[in-house]
Amino acid sequence: MSGEQLFFEDMVEGQRYSAGPIGISAERIKQFAEEFDPQAQHTDEEAARATPFGELVASGWHTASITMRLMHEAVIKRFGGGMGLGVEGLKWIQPVRPGDELTAEIQVGTLRDSKTKPEFGIVPLRITAFNQRREPVLVMQTASLVRRRGGG
Amino acid sequence: MSGEQLFFEDMVEGQRYSAGPIGISAERIKQFAEEFDPQAQHTDEEAARATPFGELVASGWHTASITMRLMHEAVIKRFGGGMGLGVEGLKWIQPVRPGDELTAEIQVGTLRDSKTKPEFGIVPLRITAFNQRREPVLVMQTASLVRRRGGG
Repeated sequence: MSGEQLFFEDMVEGQRYSAGPIGISAERIKQFAEEFDPQAQHTDEEAARATPFGELVASGWHTASITMRLMHEAVIKRFGGGMGLGVEGLKWIQPVRPGDELTAEIQVGTLRDSKTKPEFGIVPLRITAFNQRREPVLVMQTASLVRRRGGG
Repeated sequence: MSGEQLFFEDMVEGQRYSAGPIGISAERIKQFAEEFDPQAQHTDEEAARATPFGELVASGWHTASITMRLMHEAVIKRFGGGMGLGVEGLKWIQPVRPGDELTAEIQVGTLRDSKTKPEFGIVPLRITAFNQRREPVLVMQTASLVRRRGGG
């Protein structure tokens, strides 16, 4: 863990974090897709030509998983066991291609109390993932439970 | 591809599809997490005990990716190159643990036209993933572009 542990009380609405880049290869695109999303545009360069994409592109779930890794590096690793509640919205804006290098910018949303878990607070994050041309490839909004100081 | 290709015109609001089970092992939970979500509750049984989960649990992005595979098996493989637009909401309801067996039930939402891509229509899907005790572990709503018949 780099940096001090962050508690709910340390979070500030509007605070920004960033991380990356993380690269993505054709080989890894195809491996991920074989396991989780074996559509032709993700598993084989040749077969991808006949799809609306016309070329090999990463599964959106692969892009989302890399974005999670970027969120981890940027801030989540400092939560010391945060709990993801869910995703309030996620859009795939632009295909991710072999050789792309992804970065993420993360902004803290409006902090709120947890009604069911008083030892935690709810931290919304707004994330944009970019490729190496600074084109946004994915935007999403998540919500996580983060421990309060002294919250056990 | 099992079954005929499905075009936008073949989709019916309220139609249900299902798939599974797909199992998840401790080894695969840890591998996925090392790559995409290396929080202690996902990477190591021992370290997981000190987290709010108290035990090794799958990354929510791993669960979501398995759910994508179930959606593929149930219906998306018949789209012949669908394009995911995004996720309108995703909630992780219950942790997924080593040895769990996941299934999914999928229901077609309200079909709509695409304003920018007339050769496609928009197919919303509502998905619930269950464990082997029929407890829901994840619910999400997605939207995909699906080709119209003769839409190229």
